[in-house]
Amino acid sequence: MSELRVNLKKVVDDSYDIEIGYALKDKLIDDLKEGLVGKIHKFAVITDSIVKELYADDIYNALKQAGYDAELFVFPEGEKSKTRKTKEDIEDAMLAKGFRRDCCIIAVGGGVVTDLAGFIAGTFGRGVPFINYATTILSAADASVGGKTAVDTPLATNLIGLFNQPEKVYIDIETWNTLPKRQIVSGLAETIKHACIADKEFFNYLDEHMTEILTMDKIACEHIAETNCRIKYNVVMKDEMETGLREVLNLGHTVGRAIETVSDYELMHGEAVSIGIVAEVNLAYRLSYVSDDERKAVIALLKKAGLPTEIPDYIDREALVKKLYTDKKVRDGKLRFVLQNGIGDIVEFEPGVFARPIEEDVAREIIMQM
Amino acid sequence: MSELRVNLKKVVDDSYDIEIGYALKDKLIDDLKEGLVGKIHKFAVITDSIVKELYADDIYNALKQAGYDAELFVFPEGEKSKTRKTKEDIEDAMLAKGFRRDCCIIAVGGGVVTDLAGFIAGTFGRGVPFINYATTILSAADASVGGKTAVDTPLATNLIGLFNQPEKVYIDIETWNTLPKRQIVSGLAETIKHACIADKEFFNYLDEHMTEILTMDKIACEHIAETNCRIKYNVVMKDEMETGLREVLNLGHTVGRAIETVSDYELMHGEAVSIGIVAEVNLAYRLSYVSDDERKAVIALLKKAGLPTEIPDYIDREALVKKLYTDKKVRDGKLRFVLQNGIGDIVEFEPGVFARPIEEDVAREIIMQM
Repeated sequence: MSELRVNLKKVVDDSYDIEIGYALKDKLIDDLKEGLVGKIHKFAVITDSIVKELYADDIYNALKQAGYDAELFVFPEGEKSKTRKTKEDIEDAMLAKGFRRDCCIIAVGGGVVTDLAGFIAGTFGRGVPFINYATTILSAADASVGGKTAVDTPLATNLIGLFNQPEKVYIDIETWNTLPKRQIVSGLAETIKHACIADKEFFNYLDEHMTEILTMDKIACEHIAETNCRIKYNVVMKDEMETGLREVLNLGHTVGRAIETVSDYELMHGEAVSIGIVAEVNLAYRLSYVSDDERKAVIALLKKAGLPTEIPDYIDREALVKKLYTDKKVRDGKLRFVLQNGIGDIVEFEPGVFARPIEEDVAREIIMQM
Repeated sequence: MSELRVNLKKVVDDSYDIEIGYALKDKLIDDLKEGLVGKIHKFAVITDSIVKELYADDIYNALKQAGYDAELFVFPEGEKSKTRKTKEDIEDAMLAKGFRRDCCIIAVGGGVVTDLAGFIAGTFGRGVPFINYATTILSAADASVGGKTAVDTPLATNLIGLFNQPEKVYIDIETWNTLPKRQIVSGLAETIKHACIADKEFFNYLDEHMTEILTMDKIACEHIAETNCRIKYNVVMKDEMETGLREVLNLGHTVGRAIETVSDYELMHGEAVSIGIVAEVNLAYRLSYVSDDERKAVIALLKKAGLPTEIPDYIDREALVKKLYTDKKVRDGKLRFVLQNGIGDIVEFEPGVFARPIEEDVAREIIMQM
């Protein structure tokens, strides 16, 4: 018997910049010319059927005009496309178009596009670089910081994927003007979540400036884009691989993800998360972590943004309770919830542990009351 | 416009041990008890339909006896199973059995099993730890060092995957006794490849001890297992992410992989690589990197091991030439080959560049002559 040690200790630098501004297409091309991805000159622009005409076509054309090889890969918009099947289709299309390891992927779109394209980039040729060009409030708040990429499966959302960091992220606030109202509102759920977990002042800002935000006021939009990134960044920096602290970003998502799935994606991600935030602030209230006033303030802010705060009638409550067990925070068959500690803070259940075990009966009771 | 820097520089330690010996099942259980994967007590044993009864059942039972949660996931043996579909089926089965992020995968089998299971581990819950228990000569030589995991697609082999390092590798030489003759022989192709690229003394050892090896002599088998790991380790250590030097391990694989695919996997991986080594040593001879004697010595050793050295008649030569372009070493649409520099060394085409561009006509000529 003999033993051989494979030593693979090394310094890894996955750092990247997030650029927040208006109409950043030209900046992207300039960055590429200045060597953002080295000598690579072959680009796969991945987008969905809606963003294609709005922005991805322009970026594709700008790449061609700048002398790069580029191809567009388009899939039907919506969370339902975030599957292994779509990943496979795009991989096969890229291979058929001659893409190999010497390419870069540019994701143009919202969270579904960046999640999917980032995952494809992580496994194509065992990893090629990728750039996120985020075109929704949700992707500004949620998908542009943290390196989480994934697809959904019939049994659970976001459980098959990778931690994979982009080369750069562009948050183009100009694009928010073309978002349908429902999507703007949905995107605000993650923004409100960030305020709830980390920043009471930001919570008050949102409460006071909701009208400006909903009418796409430039200053207000830039402020929420920046604050979202900053809050998420501070959490991610301390826990890149989601071993502890990062779970706080899961506020509203234990119930939210389950509702999203049980609704068969009738509810948008942000809408489901909004309902999840309500369920979980009710739970936090029951466990005396928030006062009744704080609980009501959270629900009032979600309502002010136009988000749903009740579980729709068509949702089977028992199916919902059962679905909670597909949550990635489940340990040893036990449900675990992230809970608000007042507004702007999270309950630290044990040192370094932010997800608190909750009995199924308690979770069921909260859900039944909504 | 504003910019935020996401700093993600850190030290990563992916080091692990390779244990080479006989009947290592008990050692595996001991290692788990001593904390090889921390507090994890839920294990997914992934194996194929042949190795299941030979070894995986035993390991599964030993895990249960030791008090661990364990489930067996079995797929049909053979390279044809190394697909995104099999990956998806196992993921769904794991999710259905309640597996989440707090589990560890144990791959029991040859290269197909370790490649597939390592890839599944890399994306399940965005990454869970895995252990390789290698049961073939090929996986000892090829799949246990290097962290390359992947699946095949209709258009190319091994192009969708990840670099993912195991927690530990067990090379159980006892298991070689149950290998079918064809698989033993196939496994020796990578062994001979290692000798050709890095170790003339080992090449001579193989030439002198082929009979002992083919009759599973204990000392000879242990020697080749160790030497294979050492050679591959020395290459991988210097180039974990396959940016340069690691390409030398691709000797025989440019043509080999293409033949394997065009044969629709009628040829085993090692058989195809053997033919690839012949094609590429012929090419090296033509370009005066090896003498005719060296060329003949390589072919003779492959024959002595019982490996094929000619392209089968049923292979369409033009389809083969075309298939060469799916090789991952292709850059800017140009074929690139790794070439022997005599025996035990590789041509360094430019400093740090080991894959040499070759015109299609030259590659075609070599293939047509075989």
